[in-house]
Amino acid sequence: MASFSRLVRFLARDGRTYYGDAILPSGVTDIAKAKQAKIIRGQIFGKYDVTDQVEDIRMLLAPLALDDVKTVRCLGLNYEQHAKESNLPIPKFPVLFYKPLTSLAGPTDPIPVHPLAQQGSGLDYECELVAIIGKPCSDVPESSALDYVLGYAIGNDVSHRDWQLKHGGGQWSLGKGFDGWAPYGPGIVSSKIIKDPRNLQISTKLNGKTVQESSTKDMIFGVAKTIAFLSQGTTLLPGDLIFTGTPQGVGMGRKPQLWLKDGDIVEVALEGVGTCANKVKFTKVRSKL
Amino acid sequence: MASFSRLVRFLARDGRTYYGDAILPSGVTDIAKAKQAKIIRGQIFGKYDVTDQVEDIRMLLAPLALDDVKTVRCLGLNYEQHAKESNLPIPKFPVLFYKPLTSLAGPTDPIPVHPLAQQGSGLDYECELVAIIGKPCSDVPESSALDYVLGYAIGNDVSHRDWQLKHGGGQWSLGKGFDGWAPYGPGIVSSKIIKDPRNLQISTKLNGKTVQESSTKDMIFGVAKTIAFLSQGTTLLPGDLIFTGTPQGVGMGRKPQLWLKDGDIVEVALEGVGTCANKVKFTKVRSKL
Repeated sequence: MASFSRLVRFLARDGRTYYGDAILPSGVTDIAKAKQAKIIRGQIFGKYDVTDQVEDIRMLLAPLALDDVKTVRCLGLNYEQHAKESNLPIPKFPVLFYKPLTSLAGPTDPIPVHPLAQQGSGLDYECELVAIIGKPCSDVPESSALDYVLGYAIGNDVSHRDWQLKHGGGQWSLGKGFDGWAPYGPGIVSSKIIKDPRNLQISTKLNGKTVQESSTKDMIFGVAKTIAFLSQGTTLLPGDLIFTGTPQGVGMGRKPQLWLKDGDIVEVALEGVGTCANKVKFTKVRSKL
Repeated sequence: MASFSRLVRFLARDGRTYYGDAILPSGVTDIAKAKQAKIIRGQIFGKYDVTDQVEDIRMLLAPLALDDVKTVRCLGLNYEQHAKESNLPIPKFPVLFYKPLTSLAGPTDPIPVHPLAQQGSGLDYECELVAIIGKPCSDVPESSALDYVLGYAIGNDVSHRDWQLKHGGGQWSLGKGFDGWAPYGPGIVSSKIIKDPRNLQISTKLNGKTVQESSTKDMIFGVAKTIAFLSQGTTLLPGDLIFTGTPQGVGMGRKPQLWLKDGDIVEVALEGVGTCANKVKFTKVRSKL
């Protein structure tokens, strides 16, 4: 039984949804460009098999089904240059916050912007390396912390600065937690391929123009240190996601400030993993579910 | 098919774990005193049956299995007198934060205090009404918001003030998210029994002495208003929990301040629901799972 290299979840041409191991054309590293995948059967966090059955990918979905995700953690101010552009001191400890499960979305899903988040200003992007926990861990030392990682993805910690910073009583949750405000993917590259995510190029393009460009080596708390810190007295579970913070270049830090508008295309990319390209879509109040 | 009145999850005398509908002796309203329950078969958030099979309760567990819980939301500063004791203005909007799934615990579980949270000062209790979402809801008006509530429990939003307020970069997450720091229960009273939780006595006893005593009528944002607000652009899912804030009398607000110690017994109680009694247990660093 082989383990996956590049986990994807996708809608296949046969109309069904599968987990699969992406097949990349020679010389291609962006999972978003995969056209086919080997079907995975079983439990991603238990026993599974990468089969020889190949299916065509019609659309990539969020790499994990909602039922396979537990808690979504995020770090703030975790890149030196971003802390500086925010005019805030370098944190002494990781700055932790959460997103709800419903914020998760796939690599090509639109980013819905509810009328509440169309008010005021501050709709912003944040490209982030996402670490996915693969095994329960608690009080793990930094030296072995990466053993508990299933793999890595790229995500966008979409934020509304007014709701995040001005109207939330100081807590960032509301302005970062709307439905679909954490697209991630395009797949999860196994930690046996990315052995240490300490030196990966990470970037955001807005309507084709690069607005964030950095390397994970600018991270203040690397993935191993973050897991060691967060797992103190707190068990991290298989299916926990950690968005590890964004580098400089967010709209809030630019002069003049740059806010997302209806119809904008935001592409976040991580070296060796790929690209999520999501379109900003202003919505009306939906009817009740 | 009848729906439950008082949902419990429990370890039975036969050694198995069940969902059940608690049977209360005449005149008793505290679910913690139930000795028996009618077994529930099926899915709590789907189709289930309250059967006629009665089992003896050996120990009550957290009312929902971890796999049945989605996202745990909490409100801060949601009682007028508590906002005043905290020397903070009455919030204009609900102050939202989250706890991880691993913080959930049962009504008699010990509250483990990791060495990290034994440092400094500030280990504190917070009795809170917990609303459990029963149906998906999104953009619901206040007038129908309570239709989406499965029921109510009492919980303790255990907090470490130093980690919450001083070392978390302003975000409360770390100091409130340790394993077992959200005991709740003793069961979930159906919203068909508690039709509107707007005037319920809520209290905390520390080693038998009352330290918090209030009514949910002091809540700034009631449950209906909270759900209407939080569901704007954010879908609340069956199995989402909302801890709705604590009244005055927390250890931080007392003069002199009063912090929990190893061995303390904290009892949080809600009228018509019952009591969770949890013992504070200082721990050593555990070995890896």
